[in-house]
Amino acid sequence: LLLVLRFISFFSESHRQDSANLLIFIMLLTLTILTIWLFKHRRFRFLHETGLAMIYGLLVGVILRFGIHVPQNMSDVILSCAVNASPATLLVNVSGRFYEYTLKGEVSRGKGLQVQDDEMLRKVTFDPEVFFNILLPPIIFHAGYSLKRRHFFRNIGSILAYAFMGTVISCFVIGLIMYGFVSFMKVVGQLGGDFFFTDCLLFGAIISATDPVTVLAIFNELKVDVDLYALLFGESVLNDAVAIILSSSIAAYQPAGDNSHSFEAMAMLKSFGIFLGVFSGSFALGVATGVMTFTKLRDFPLLETALFFLMSWSTFLLAEACGFTGVVAVLFCGITQAHYTFNNLSPDSQDRTKQLFELLNFLAENFIFSYMGLTLFSFQSHVFNPMFIIGAFVAVFLGRAANIYPLSFLLNLGRKNKIGYNFQHVMMFAGLRGAMTFALSIRDTATYARQMMFSTTLLIVFFTVWICGGGTTPMLTFMSIPSAMLDGSQRRNTKHESAWPFRIWYNFDHNYLKPLLTHSGPPLTATLPTCCGPLARCLTSPQAYEVWTQHNVIQ
Amino acid sequence: LLLVLRFISFFSESHRQDSANLLIFIMLLTLTILTIWLFKHRRFRFLHETGLAMIYGLLVGVILRFGIHVPQNMSDVILSCAVNASPATLLVNVSGRFYEYTLKGEVSRGKGLQVQDDEMLRKVTFDPEVFFNILLPPIIFHAGYSLKRRHFFRNIGSILAYAFMGTVISCFVIGLIMYGFVSFMKVVGQLGGDFFFTDCLLFGAIISATDPVTVLAIFNELKVDVDLYALLFGESVLNDAVAIILSSSIAAYQPAGDNSHSFEAMAMLKSFGIFLGVFSGSFALGVATGVMTFTKLRDFPLLETALFFLMSWSTFLLAEACGFTGVVAVLFCGITQAHYTFNNLSPDSQDRTKQLFELLNFLAENFIFSYMGLTLFSFQSHVFNPMFIIGAFVAVFLGRAANIYPLSFLLNLGRKNKIGYNFQHVMMFAGLRGAMTFALSIRDTATYARQMMFSTTLLIVFFTVWICGGGTTPMLTFMSIPSAMLDGSQRRNTKHESAWPFRIWYNFDHNYLKPLLTHSGPPLTATLPTCCGPLARCLTSPQAYEVWTQHNVIQ
Repeated sequence: LLLVLRFISFFSESHRQDSANLLIFIMLLTLTILTIWLFKHRRFRFLHETGLAMIYGLLVGVILRFGIHVPQNMSDVILSCAVNASPATLLVNVSGRFYEYTLKGEVSRGKGLQVQDDEMLRKVTFDPEVFFNILLPPIIFHAGYSLKRRHFFRNIGSILAYAFMGTVISCFVIGLIMYGFVSFMKVVGQLGGDFFFTDCLLFGAIISATDPVTVLAIFNELKVDVDLYALLFGESVLNDAVAIILSSSIAAYQPAGDNSHSFEAMAMLKSFGIFLGVFSGSFALGVATGVMTFTKLRDFPLLETALFFLMSWSTFLLAEACGFTGVVAVLFCGITQAHYTFNNLSPDSQDRTKQLFELLNFLAENFIFSYMGLTLFSFQSHVFNPMFIIGAFVAVFLGRAANIYPLSFLLNLGRKNKIGYNFQHVMMFAGLRGAMTFALSIRDTATYARQMMFSTTLLIVFFTVWICGGGTTPMLTFMSIPSAMLDGSQRRNTKHESAWPFRIWYNFDHNYLKPLLTHSGPPLTATLPTCCGPLARCLTSPQAYEVWTQHNVIQ
Repeated sequence: LLLVLRFISFFSESHRQDSANLLIFIMLLTLTILTIWLFKHRRFRFLHETGLAMIYGLLVGVILRFGIHVPQNMSDVILSCAVNASPATLLVNVSGRFYEYTLKGEVSRGKGLQVQDDEMLRKVTFDPEVFFNILLPPIIFHAGYSLKRRHFFRNIGSILAYAFMGTVISCFVIGLIMYGFVSFMKVVGQLGGDFFFTDCLLFGAIISATDPVTVLAIFNELKVDVDLYALLFGESVLNDAVAIILSSSIAAYQPAGDNSHSFEAMAMLKSFGIFLGVFSGSFALGVATGVMTFTKLRDFPLLETALFFLMSWSTFLLAEACGFTGVVAVLFCGITQAHYTFNNLSPDSQDRTKQLFELLNFLAENFIFSYMGLTLFSFQSHVFNPMFIIGAFVAVFLGRAANIYPLSFLLNLGRKNKIGYNFQHVMMFAGLRGAMTFALSIRDTATYARQMMFSTTLLIVFFTVWICGGGTTPMLTFMSIPSAMLDGSQRRNTKHESAWPFRIWYNFDHNYLKPLLTHSGPPLTATLPTCCGPLARCLTSPQAYEVWTQHNVIQ
């Protein structure tokens, strides 16, 4: 009986502790929201809300680190039990009763047994999986859902070039420069542990992804040139996906070889194959579920919204369960849903879903940034190596330059409306690192190399969000970027401006896919050849005729 | 290195498994939504959506139990390690590296080491804390937020009587009857373990709370008499709070005595003190945060909605962290926010918050009910004792009768509009047990008594939701309950119908509190005596004058 009682008190105690920890974060968010409101109210634009969230996180981190000391009795925590493996589940036999324990992780070797004082800090630390499974999906989905598709697809070629080729170039440039630095450090004796070439590449993959969050917020408010916005935003959204796949391919490729960690052409090709497979799988899955959410529950907005929400989330989970990348799937699911499914929703649900995802995105985003601030002090195995940090800053700068300038030059050879130098400079400058970089680097902090990467990444994120993010507005005025002209005259030209593969796709989409999957656009009976008449009539809903007739009357 | 690699693969493997498990639930919810739509579309009202969710949960439970067998190597799971305590955290020393393990719970004694086949089922089982911390708060908050306050406060006396006295009566009646049954079973030799008097009382406390979810849904659709609706709904919402506090008081009182488990008047009084303290603390906290969320961010609906959401959640967490009952706090927070804060929100945010909480409530509710269905097969230490189950059904029936009929008789002595016999029969019949009962009984399933309670509770919930929930509509027609008259003529009478303490409160609220806390109602300058003129002017916002002037013009 006594054991059971201790059991209960343990549960309720840890429950109260958990509540208090969560409360800290909610208070942080509340504070951030109030300050954001104050800033918006006073039209103070120097510091962005994400930067603000980070500052508050930092402050709380300092307080938790140096202010609070929780006394704890060691005897309750440590038990000498020498076994020769570390399985996922441990059954402990206590005088006939079996207790189940789950593996939480490895305790850092250097610190050894100094656990008690860090207990509090460890409690505030989240499982990295939380970022990938709960916080990132709404952000990425919202990015896809609220994407201005017209401008996005007009610049799709350039965006793909920057996001795919650019990120890979940046990854390798950063990897090589870092390898140079690390080799030099090894010679000088500044390195406290192993740092292989694959670690350098991994660092390049982690740090190459630019962040859509801050870019989105700043450029959205300023109403900047739509093409520049589309380029920057499109690149930053897609390169998140590229970075995830690159880093997981490199991590998967790392254990494949023996301890040599050498660079093999064959393994590289294999990674590339994995990359293509995972990307196309995620893409297909996202598009498929996006199209599938084909709701006809127009009379019940609540059911409709709930279904929409669940389908988007299940896309993510399905992709993860299949071994694909959930974030990529959810991005394309968002884009497809905004393109097709959105037209099928009732007006009430259209508002509801938009607002819901806006809110989720807002909360998740601010949570991530305030957590970032918090980790600088609450994470326990930081490795700050001044030389590595300087090297990383140089590498990030050069990697970004090697992405933007050469690719812009090549793209300008083929583009009708060229990407000007002022645009290139802004793209160079606005390469902020944010949530995705953080999530990728916190995912695994087991080894010395990973810990050093994490600490350095954190500093780079802080620097870019505060300095580059805050400086974007002055930068835009300095570079004399014209503000947007969102008049109707531009709208009709989309079809003719894009390259021919996209023109064909546009026609196909407008004439066949849209009528098939939504109630908007011309009815299939008008676009299909007359021989397919019965089929077309069968596939067209009565609503589509109504919508089309109304449309023609208005025109 | 090899260890680190196994580590990584373990993480990614468990990650995929987690995704797949979550996917099962999301698919279940999607299926439920689609079927609900079909039912609503065809106006099929016999089976309610919560009952439907339970059926789908049952089916998936059967499939998981009997359909899928996951082979697993035992050597990876079990480790012989004999220690003499079971602390919350375990550090395991594997050749110089320290791994941290956290306590998950006790493995049932009978089953001993037959772990491998149940691994899959165990993965689908949630931590009971999830129900209390994540799923219940939105349901309860929504109940408070969408409460029809006019009818609620008109019947507040009767509601409080049913909820407080009624639940306590029901708890003791059920406890005593069960003690009789258990004693008889002990004599006959049908009992397989200990079952003390406090266990019987705990069972009474757990099973006494009626469920607002199903009542709300059925009566909302039928537009039944408003007073009956207010009585049933008010009772079911408040008695959740009473049941939580009763059961935690009994659980806290249990270990206070030694092994005797006898009934002491002194300890009972102590429990009552705890009860009052916790309830008033939670109440005060809920009201305080409800009033505090006093947003003036009208120009930014997103910020406003986010703040509103965070404040409601932090109420819950704050109450839990203080040792109060979060559910009670969140209920009163919802009521207060609907009464005061709602008036301060911009029209856009009013819609947003309503829709957001509606959606959260819908998802949480259906999730709980489908999970209930799932547990019947996935929970591993069910104890189905036929005699105990029969006894429990009899006790629940008698307990409900001992609550409704005597209290109605007493209340009718003082009420102007009497509670008719048909109303009493419907209240007797519609005493469904649902989410709260389930959450309370799954919270602790360590001992034999608790396991038997849990299994029996599950059956009672199934029976009441399917039979009583499905039979409510025929019951209402049979009892010839008139449908609601929601015309405006009733509205003005509220003030005069209530008892005098509520009339005083109503005046105070309308003249002073509402103007102070919101922009609605008469400005303070009109209601306060002239001597307080400067103070009143200082506390009244310009908007309040506008609103009031508009209001008078319309009248």
